[in-house]
Amino acid sequence: MARYTVRIEVWLREGLVDPEGRTVSEALSGLGFPVRSARAGRIYEISVDAPGAEEAVSMAEGMCRELLANPVRDSCRVEVIGRRDPSRRPRSPPE
Amino acid sequence: MARYTVRIEVWLREGLVDPEGRTVSEALSGLGFPVRSARAGRIYEISVDAPGAEEAVSMAEGMCRELLANPVRDSCRVEVIGRRDPSRRPRSPPE
Repeated sequence: MARYTVRIEVWLREGLVDPEGRTVSEALSGLGFPVRSARAGRIYEISVDAPGAEEAVSMAEGMCRELLANPVRDSCRVEVIGRRDPSRRPRSPPE
Repeated sequence: MARYTVRIEVWLREGLVDPEGRTVSEALSGLGFPVRSARAGRIYEISVDAPGAEEAVSMAEGMCRELLANPVRDSCRVEVIGRRDPSRRPRSPPE
């Protein structure tokens, strides 16, 4: 069992009106930035124990379905960005 | 002048208490996921006109300072993820 860090991005599905993105775009234009459009989402970095990277991704997809995203409205992107073995000492020599 | 897509991630600075991350972590543990910790942030994909990638990054950093992040509490990560020249037709043959 290793400890994985997974990144989960939650975005509104393409084609849906994104009120936060629109507000940000208008506010930035008002401040003088040459912005054409903006989308807004949420991002999580979650540390989870799993036997392998594939299982860590499956768990992250489950987290999306069960808590983090509304499946009707949102889509999730999942990526493993780190792995460490909690039983190995930080300064152990390489094998 | 080209059109760049920049990704801006806004995170609470390291060491600050992240109440949303803690809530997510506890809720996921309650659902049975073997979660050790979670951090929560916001993410934006912004389309902006700039003469070059460096200028697009500078603009994105300005957007963080002026609107998207609280400099006392938040840190921003900025990345250019796309570029296209709006004056070029989508189906023009490659050079």
